[in-house]
Amino acid sequence: MTAPDRALWIDGRIARGPEAALSLFDRGARDGEGLFETLRVEGGQPHRWRRHLERLVVSAAELGFPVPPSPSVLAAALEEVLAANRLSDAAARITVTRGIPGGRPTRTGCWIEAEPLAARLWRGTRSGQASAVISRRAFAPGSLARHKTTSRLAYHLAREEARAAGADETLLVDGADLVLEGSTSNLFAVVGGEVVTPPVALGILPGIVRAQVLALCVRLGIPTRERAIPRSELAVADEVFVTNSIQQVVPLVAIDGGAVPSRTLGARLREIYREHESRSA
Amino acid sequence: MTAPDRALWIDGRIARGPEAALSLFDRGARDGEGLFETLRVEGGQPHRWRRHLERLVVSAAELGFPVPPSPSVLAAALEEVLAANRLSDAAARITVTRGIPGGRPTRTGCWIEAEPLAARLWRGTRSGQASAVISRRAFAPGSLARHKTTSRLAYHLAREEARAAGADETLLVDGADLVLEGSTSNLFAVVGGEVVTPPVALGILPGIVRAQVLALCVRLGIPTRERAIPRSELAVADEVFVTNSIQQVVPLVAIDGGAVPSRTLGARLREIYREHESRSA
Repeated sequence: MTAPDRALWIDGRIARGPEAALSLFDRGARDGEGLFETLRVEGGQPHRWRRHLERLVVSAAELGFPVPPSPSVLAAALEEVLAANRLSDAAARITVTRGIPGGRPTRTGCWIEAEPLAARLWRGTRSGQASAVISRRAFAPGSLARHKTTSRLAYHLAREEARAAGADETLLVDGADLVLEGSTSNLFAVVGGEVVTPPVALGILPGIVRAQVLALCVRLGIPTRERAIPRSELAVADEVFVTNSIQQVVPLVAIDGGAVPSRTLGARLREIYREHESRSA
Repeated sequence: MTAPDRALWIDGRIARGPEAALSLFDRGARDGEGLFETLRVEGGQPHRWRRHLERLVVSAAELGFPVPPSPSVLAAALEEVLAANRLSDAAARITVTRGIPGGRPTRTGCWIEAEPLAARLWRGTRSGQASAVISRRAFAPGSLARHKTTSRLAYHLAREEARAAGADETLLVDGADLVLEGSTSNLFAVVGGEVVTPPVALGILPGIVRAQVLALCVRLGIPTRERAIPRSELAVADEVFVTNSIQQVVPLVAIDGGAVPSRTLGARLREIYREHESRSA
């Protein structure tokens, strides 16, 4: 969560404090009618820029949003935000909304913000000792779970269960006791030498690092499978790791206080991702 | 959707145009972390005020929101909004958010708005000839479906299917082909002399008019049952009607172009509700 004293870019200019505001007539501010992307920025360069914008534009078109600003406008805006906050390594977020109805054409609301990358890394990402809790409430993914929308209240509430327990992430389990994903990450388990991750059809976000890790495993000759993971399987998995654009690949050492036996493959994937994959388009 | 030239109340004062804005650091504007109530106002009096505030406060407590402003503050604010817009009959909305994190204590964001009631009534509410379509996409209610949250993108997208078809409402059907509710209303069917409505546990909003209609049927000696309604049953039901706080009770005459045979009971409940129930606490 960006702090209120930070500068952000909104609709063409840098704004701070009370000026960093969205009209209450914008559907985004009113009813969570927005889409966003979170990007890791290092040395001023956003990682996997093309993939993030691609997902944003595809979701916007599919859900009937106004056309987002062009990649060149967004790239220039991100540069402005980084400069205004004197940031080189950052967690950036691009948000577009469905705009204010009635205008012809309706224009999207759009803002871009950035905060220091270090402030956003989990304690467990930095130490290599990440921990998770399993949400105490059964999670029901909504119809739009595979889009990165700003209708995110349920995910934020789940995330706070981890904070309250001093853990890094909350794992979401559905009413059929299948593990879906983390509140802000995708989940992988290593079971019988296979890298397993839940399929998008179960109601998860098709994460950009998730897709990249699956492709990487194929290149490395590691068998992968997209299939449902029953909650009980987490306790017997050799490894469990989670992925997202900010944390990248993070092996878990504990789930609900129980130790995860190994993190060999997760640590290896983390290293390879970090060194060779994160900056690709 | 309130028009941009209308005055609204936000955090203690009346605001218009560009001043009617919410900080982008507020969780409500960012990620749909809000709760709202929609109220019908006639002759300056909000209908069922106590019930609406009760639902708001209970959801806020259950979901860990900051405490909403007191009923007397909200009532005075609503009066101010009505006066500023010279409205006596209105559709009003009260929204509270999870506020800006980091403050101690975190204060809720809160705004109240109102628009002319006539502008918000469906064509079918005014004519008594309301029509619905069934959403073409299977609807998956999220974990928080029984709370009135501002994480509402999926509901708005469903609603637009009705608009595109020239209908008043979109009915949501889940992956098991059970009818859940309308995008902004609860649904009832009359089957074999019984008034049937889906249970809250299926992932619907426990509407205030819904509860009132169930209680009213009991008082009138009409048998009621809360149970799942398969989509196929809609085609053989004697009547179908929908309810919400603005439209009150609305009999449907057509679903997906197919005629609903009768609207005797719905019209009767509509009349009784309108005359005797709507202004109760």
